[in-house]
Amino acid sequence: MANIGQDEDFEEAQKKALKIGASKVVIDDVREQFAKEYVWLAVQAGLLYESRYLLGTSLARPCISVGLIKCAKENKAKYISHGATGKGNDQVRFELSCYSLWPEVKIIAPWRLEEFTTRFQGRQDLLKYASENGIPVSVTPKAPWSMDANLMHISYESGILENPNNEAPQDLYLMTKDPKLAPQESVKLEIRFQNGFPISVHTGDVTYDNPLDILMFLNKVGGEHGVGRIDIVENRFIGLKSRGVYETPGGFILHIAHQDIEQFCLDKEIYRVKQTLRDRLSDFVYNGFWFSPEGQYVRSCIGLAEESVTGSVKLEIYRGNVFVLGRSSQVSLYNEDLVSMDKHSDFSPNDATGFINIHALRLKEFNRFQNQRKNMK
Amino acid sequence: MANIGQDEDFEEAQKKALKIGASKVVIDDVREQFAKEYVWLAVQAGLLYESRYLLGTSLARPCISVGLIKCAKENKAKYISHGATGKGNDQVRFELSCYSLWPEVKIIAPWRLEEFTTRFQGRQDLLKYASENGIPVSVTPKAPWSMDANLMHISYESGILENPNNEAPQDLYLMTKDPKLAPQESVKLEIRFQNGFPISVHTGDVTYDNPLDILMFLNKVGGEHGVGRIDIVENRFIGLKSRGVYETPGGFILHIAHQDIEQFCLDKEIYRVKQTLRDRLSDFVYNGFWFSPEGQYVRSCIGLAEESVTGSVKLEIYRGNVFVLGRSSQVSLYNEDLVSMDKHSDFSPNDATGFINIHALRLKEFNRFQNQRKNMK
Amino acid sequence: MANIGQDEDFEEAQKKALKIGASKVVIDDVREQFAKEYVWLAVQAGLLYESRYLLGTSLARPCISVGLIKCAKENKAKYISHGATGKGNDQVRFELSCYSLWPEVKIIAPWRLEEFTTRFQGRQDLLKYASENGIPVSVTPKAPWSMDANLMHISYESGILENPNNEAPQDLYLMTKDPKLAPQESVKLEIRFQNGFPISVHTGDVTYDNPLDILMFLNKVGGEHGVGRIDIVENRFIGLKSRGVYETPGGFILHIAHQDIEQFCLDKEIYRVKQTLRDRLSDFVYNGFWFSPEGQYVRSCIGLAEESVTGSVKLEIYRGNVFVLGRSSQVSLYNEDLVSMDKHSDFSPNDATGFINIHALRLKEFNRFQNQRKNMK
Amino acid sequence: MANIGQDEDFEEAQKKALKIGASKVVIDDVREQFAKEYVWLAVQAGLLYESRYLLGTSLARPCISVGLIKCAKENKAKYISHGATGKGNDQVRFELSCYSLWPEVKIIAPWRLEEFTTRFQGRQDLLKYASENGIPVSVTPKAPWSMDANLMHISYESGILENPNNEAPQDLYLMTKDPKLAPQESVKLEIRFQNGFPISVHTGDVTYDNPLDILMFLNKVGGEHGVGRIDIVENRFIGLKSRGVYETPGGFILHIAHQDIEQFCLDKEIYRVKQTLRDRLSDFVYNGFWFSPEGQYVRSCIGLAEESVTGSVKLEIYRGNVFVLGRSSQVSLYNEDLVSMDKHSDFSPNDATGFINIHALRLKEFNRFQNQRKNMK
Repeated sequence: MANIGQDEDFEEAQKKALKIGASKVVIDDVREQFAKEYVWLAVQAGLLYESRYLLGTSLARPCISVGLIKCAKENKAKYISHGATGKGNDQVRFELSCYSLWPEVKIIAPWRLEEFTTRFQGRQDLLKYASENGIPVSVTPKAPWSMDANLMHISYESGILENPNNEAPQDLYLMTKDPKLAPQESVKLEIRFQNGFPISVHTGDVTYDNPLDILMFLNKVGGEHGVGRIDIVENRFIGLKSRGVYETPGGFILHIAHQDIEQFCLDKEIYRVKQTLRDRLSDFVYNGFWFSPEGQYVRSCIGLAEESVTGSVKLEIYRGNVFVLGRSSQVSLYNEDLVSMDKHSDFSPNDATGFINIHALRLKEFNRFQNQRKNMK
Repeated sequence: MANIGQDEDFEEAQKKALKIGASKVVIDDVREQFAKEYVWLAVQAGLLYESRYLLGTSLARPCISVGLIKCAKENKAKYISHGATGKGNDQVRFELSCYSLWPEVKIIAPWRLEEFTTRFQGRQDLLKYASENGIPVSVTPKAPWSMDANLMHISYESGILENPNNEAPQDLYLMTKDPKLAPQESVKLEIRFQNGFPISVHTGDVTYDNPLDILMFLNKVGGEHGVGRIDIVENRFIGLKSRGVYETPGGFILHIAHQDIEQFCLDKEIYRVKQTLRDRLSDFVYNGFWFSPEGQYVRSCIGLAEESVTGSVKLEIYRGNVFVLGRSSQVSLYNEDLVSMDKHSDFSPNDATGFINIHALRLKEFNRFQNQRKNMK
Repeated sequence: MANIGQDEDFEEAQKKALKIGASKVVIDDVREQFAKEYVWLAVQAGLLYESRYLLGTSLARPCISVGLIKCAKENKAKYISHGATGKGNDQVRFELSCYSLWPEVKIIAPWRLEEFTTRFQGRQDLLKYASENGIPVSVTPKAPWSMDANLMHISYESGILENPNNEAPQDLYLMTKDPKLAPQESVKLEIRFQNGFPISVHTGDVTYDNPLDILMFLNKVGGEHGVGRIDIVENRFIGLKSRGVYETPGGFILHIAHQDIEQFCLDKEIYRVKQTLRDRLSDFVYNGFWFSPEGQYVRSCIGLAEESVTGSVKLEIYRGNVFVLGRSSQVSLYNEDLVSMDKHSDFSPNDATGFINIHALRLKEFNRFQNQRKNMK
Repeated sequence: MANIGQDEDFEEAQKKALKIGASKVVIDDVREQFAKEYVWLAVQAGLLYESRYLLGTSLARPCISVGLIKCAKENKAKYISHGATGKGNDQVRFELSCYSLWPEVKIIAPWRLEEFTTRFQGRQDLLKYASENGIPVSVTPKAPWSMDANLMHISYESGILENPNNEAPQDLYLMTKDPKLAPQESVKLEIRFQNGFPISVHTGDVTYDNPLDILMFLNKVGGEHGVGRIDIVENRFIGLKSRGVYETPGGFILHIAHQDIEQFCLDKEIYRVKQTLRDRLSDFVYNGFWFSPEGQYVRSCIGLAEESVTGSVKLEIYRGNVFVLGRSSQVSLYNEDLVSMDKHSDFSPNDATGFINIHALRLKEFNRFQNQRKNMK
């Protein structure tokens, strides 16, 4: 088992595993790697799947896979097995990650084996089997959905959420408070970035400066203030649409802050190239291609762009909102003098006339062309 | 003058114009066209400049230009003049729009004429001149920034906002309440879309079903609940970075709702093509190319994609937040049975094995390749 | 069997099929549909896979699939079977086409069934089996490769071509003459396009004006002059690299001509949008997604762009070369006066100064930024 | 003056310059830099403007600009002047290059100065002035077009070429022989690449292994065999369409060879990302943004991709044709065993079934959706 930040009773889990037949249980704390080598790269790249999803689960899978392989090799195992379903994304993410790093491994996915699929139609049958056989499970009639939790987020799906018009019940959320019940007082923060990576967060007298601490602190603040909830229908890799509810408190704050400092620091045209790379990488990561050639390549390209994303963002967190209040950088392409409406500075207003006229050339020609066509008919 | 929804005393404006020498003043109410032919198309396309700006000003310029040309032609004028500055985007948007529709027109931009630019360094000099010459202006020492308002938004820039690290003062916002002072009670809405266009909004017993009414109603609700504020540094067309503060209450609600129903209805791959078209169109519109060949073309393509975006979204508005609660459509690619974790339905779990294995082929080959390269060195 | 233009003895094929157990043989001439509804759309879009491959085989698959389904339904069959291998693209193209149009059909692919795959390692084993069982096949020791032919092209792969450094032997090519042995005299043609579609070809006194005739005539001319051969390594959909040799005489001539008239007629920015759509569609078609939502959608978008691609191209065909000699259009964005180096026409040279200076702003700022960064270190 | 490989009598040019008033003439041989730092990067990136133009002139401008700046600084000049016209691309390329590297420089462009533009309508007036004032020029009634030559190519435009339907006369071409008059015997070459750069060319007993020698040798061979001519209408940066005729013998051979080895070596998905970067860089370079932030950035990204493009390509050059005969690499993603039609190797044919079925899911759903929509109407 990976301790990747989920709120789990690992001792209990170990007991359960041994009880139902495991010969050995290994629990590995991968939280630091997860924050530093996965979440941080996602923040730097600004990853966002289908414009909204911050990829909390997708990022965890390759990190867990590294742990699985390490454990398997140490224990001279030749097989890896996982409990991801046959309709979902996680089976793909686990297996592609494992095959990328260890092509010879064999993977067993019980949810896809005929002996199981003929016996069990799905989650309900499995719950029934578990209850009949004394296997404790976290899904209960009181919480009729499935969830996946880690340091970055909790995702909820299936059960009553399968009807996309059902409102997610308020007691579903475990990581964030209901914004309506959040404190009256807002919190102000300053986050500092270097090369596109968060390097410190500062509020009042407190400063955090390593990935795990920053993320845990922002989860606490964001969770307290009800920040980072979304309810979406997304497109799975295998082509199905599915409904997911996510809460990503710290990740959302980091995303907003990075987005602001990035646009402040990056050259206009580099920004555009980088955003198309980000869109591709978001798909790669969602689909399980973290360790793929294209995943590695696009991350390198984005890293090059982010070399100049260095500076600070001031934020205010209040009941579901993350407001950007200001930003600064010691090296910036922003030029207050040049843009000022109070002086010409190095700018010659007359140049704009030529700029516009030249752009108008093509538009005037198109007007002529359209008249020409009309007259032809 | 165009009445494009700004909160302006048109009678006063007329008096002022006549007082300072205008031979005739024409005030045209273009609010309906603006909502229907510009804002609605932006909502349908999901336009967003540099990931954040909803383009409120950019959309108004072509609409006003159409009015300017109509007025000029009716009055047999050969010249159009505007007060946009030489460093900004609006000069480009006005002039490219006018040249596209009326290539023969001559445009006079006093902010760029040498006789003015040598005499006035910028806004401060102009304010001084105005005060010395008894010309009333809305910018005052109490509100030291410039603003642009219309039915969709108000934008604020320059003055104390030119330092990107200065917080925007709370008394700046005119269209939205401070979220902290917004009502305790949230509001629930249902917005219905057809072909990607909002066709009705429904709350309690009230229904609005034409673009202008919908937009005005959502501005009221959104404004009351402090929704749609952003503070960003953006890249102008001419290559300068500038800081802008925007409030777009109704437009933001529509954007969130459309984004949700679109992803619910559109095929996964059409969605991807459409999003790259949206990114291009966002740049075209920001840069003033609304009437350009590429602007027209990409709008047509997006219109084709949106033909299947039909359905309803349920929203909750609360202190700066727009929460999506659910969505439905009578024709949808979402298939609750197929995606359910409770039954196999038409899905053969075993197929996923082949799907993954084939995708793994290339990744395993890359692993082999990397070892080969390592051994070469 | 589909008669899709391959040079085949259909009577012989029928005999063979009946001999080896077919209960009925249907041979359908789909050449007209193929030319008009597939090749013509590929020409209009300018399809090109991985910058070089004109997609001759990929285009044939959906056309043949339509015929297969028609035949199956007429004969009340519930199964469709094909002989495409398990490593190739064609299995995907056939099956995705069939499933798109007839989701309930069952498909049998013997090359992937365990009872066959355990018995036969591949082509060599099958040839051996065929020879032992008296089944005549076209692949012989003298032509040790496999080929696929239709009206648009012949492709060759496998056998001695599997080593990508082996030169393709001269006697491999069946559709084109060796350019070195082609006539000394070149041929001049004029091809006329409307909405991006070829509508006539003219040479000497001869004119052809329907898709099938045009394509057959250009195959003859192109074949005679050794035009349209390529030898490439491409990436299959399933992730393998494979080596293919193709000859596409008529298709290549049409591609060159269309490319020229398109760039002559299309607005600069529409052209750019359309080219990214073309790149996507090329992948969709290669991968078998002709009838997919995205395939249909992108074709519609390209069709919109091509509405202004109307005019004529003059070509010269000579020993492997297709030279463009000139082009004309009655409605064109080309403006000889405006571009002339002999007069200013409507162009104000001074405008270019402003155009350049505004573009230089951002570059100068980047220079400042880089110095700032250098000084920081 | 830059000696950038054009066939020019530099002594004569120097005399002419001094005669018409130059105080000093500096002639700098920049051919090595041009080949190594510009042409080689273009080959590595596979640059191609609007699918056809190899950018011979565009690449020369930044290289010449570096020389201009060096010369200006050594001679303590503050102004740079050039003879590029006001309608063309070269003015932009020169000036943006100079401003990028030396923001303080002043540039004088006589073709855009009012005192000249009012006096001269264009090229004809200038030729008349030159002839009246005893200034020798290379354009003559016998060659009524303008040309630009360097080590990579010669471009021809204007004059009789301004009518896009006029055939380019055979005596126009100076760098390549008429393919019809080229030798009967073809030439075979092998070009070796490392990291996407050509590192040697080999034919018979001869080997060249530095950029300048390779390019000059390939120009000789390609020129002799009539390779690399194109006749196109292209879109200039300023929005005009113009007709250009180009001959790029060596550059064309390198382009074909690089394209082949790249597709052989690059991972399928990296190739796709890289091609979109190439399309952007082609526009950047054409438009004069070689030294821009985005130009530098995208070149770096492409350089990362090309790190695995290492191997050899065998070519045959014959009368306008460059045929690829084969390719090899010691580290390659091509796997002859895996792709073979003669054995299963590590491939499980059965996996393809699942792969196809999963892809078919979305297509079947779309079929269902379309029926649903039909039934709604």
